[in-house]
Amino acid sequence: MNVLIVYAHPEPRSLNGSLRDFSVKRLEDAGHNVQVSDLYAMKWKASLDADDSLVQRTGARFDPALDSQHAFEHGLQREDIAREQQKLIEADALILQFPMWWFSMPAILKGWVERVYAYGFAYGVGEHSDSRWGDRYGEGTLTGKRAMLVVTAGGWESHYSARGINGPIDDLLFPIQHGILYYPGFDVLPPFVVYRTGRVDEAKYPQVRDALGARLDRLWETEPLAFRRQNGGAYDIPDCTLKPDIAPGQTGFAAHIAYK
Amino acid sequence: MNVLIVYAHPEPRSLNGSLRDFSVKRLEDAGHNVQVSDLYAMKWKASLDADDSLVQRTGARFDPALDSQHAFEHGLQREDIAREQQKLIEADALILQFPMWWFSMPAILKGWVERVYAYGFAYGVGEHSDSRWGDRYGEGTLTGKRAMLVVTAGGWESHYSARGINGPIDDLLFPIQHGILYYPGFDVLPPFVVYRTGRVDEAKYPQVRDALGARLDRLWETEPLAFRRQNGGAYDIPDCTLKPDIAPGQTGFAAHIAYK
Repeated sequence: MNVLIVYAHPEPRSLNGSLRDFSVKRLEDAGHNVQVSDLYAMKWKASLDADDSLVQRTGARFDPALDSQHAFEHGLQREDIAREQQKLIEADALILQFPMWWFSMPAILKGWVERVYAYGFAYGVGEHSDSRWGDRYGEGTLTGKRAMLVVTAGGWESHYSARGINGPIDDLLFPIQHGILYYPGFDVLPPFVVYRTGRVDEAKYPQVRDALGARLDRLWETEPLAFRRQNGGAYDIPDCTLKPDIAPGQTGFAAHIAYK
Repeated sequence: MNVLIVYAHPEPRSLNGSLRDFSVKRLEDAGHNVQVSDLYAMKWKASLDADDSLVQRTGARFDPALDSQHAFEHGLQREDIAREQQKLIEADALILQFPMWWFSMPAILKGWVERVYAYGFAYGVGEHSDSRWGDRYGEGTLTGKRAMLVVTAGGWESHYSARGINGPIDDLLFPIQHGILYYPGFDVLPPFVVYRTGRVDEAKYPQVRDALGARLDRLWETEPLAFRRQNGGAYDIPDCTLKPDIAPGQTGFAAHIAYK
């Protein structure tokens, strides 16, 4: 299988760097082909702007969606964007690995999403009608592929618990797991999260590494998160709200997961 | 009063550009001093890295927190960072204005947060003891200032409703409002959100503009969101979990707001 690791940490000699190197070896030893997009090493352009198209639409003001669509449809995307899209198409699984900075992914990785997720590629796909609202949330270009987050956090696990002050980790990751990964079609596996990274010393590191290794070994067998498909009957279209008989009375992120 | 608008849209001739210009004029007409950090126009460096310190720690590998602390304490920050911190110190109110891209702020603005929010400035402030866990979540360098989000979204309002497929807007904005603004001390006002921006034409624009104007007129009178102060008695320290008698049985982001 082909695995793409998109990796966002500025220092190779870090916990993240060690875990990245470990993941590559573990996956390769299991016979997989691994590609790494090391965004800092690639000096990835983080900010989406008009320069992302080789030729701009004539006379038009820059529109992030329309310009993205125009460039994608006409083969006018910057080469760095097209190359990452090709890696995604060839991948059977995607791993996004990053340190949690201010309760989300680092800017450089957010900029990878914004620029690589072109209109026509990751959004603006499929018909909009009375029964469908585009190919998104469980359908789309990346359907059939798996995705998983590998996240490090400086804070304590309790701070990210159900009643922890940072908010529950599942809720903090929902906009990424559901809004960025499930949206264009990925099956999203439960995340691998390391807490209190300042305490991961030489004694603790083997535990973290082995736990990650076990998750990588089960990449193809792990049950994905049971997000509800947008066009699968659970939502009213075009409002895209849960039908009254689905998770009745429930609100918030968790209502979009079909717990068994 | 001094108002700082940190603005992140690549095209001045956009809805965001119009609303930004309108806000500046409305606030200035009311007698306020307004500064705008127009991140795209400034070609803001989005990615946090070792170049953010003028002199690196000798012989050490790059550590985002320790290097930030070292540079902040010793006056060795890049000038673009120090300048934005000075703007924050001088501001009585901060407005973050941005289009919602993939359910969060654009990368360029996330990179403003990551780089300007230095260790010792926005985090790593105050004592850690049995009763306090640093000056954060309601206390910190930016205490006494107000902050508000001005956000545009392409999607429909129903998609962001309590049972909408994107997740409720309040939950999507929680990591920003609570984790980025309340964390270093801001009082956070309810956000101003424009939905379905593709439908904001010349007929609709005056409504949007006037609604924003009314919010700007009440910037100093609007009741802030009632986030619970970390060191105010609602949380067990150092676990930073809600005490059992606070919002009993409740989990998730909303538990951290003291609804009246």
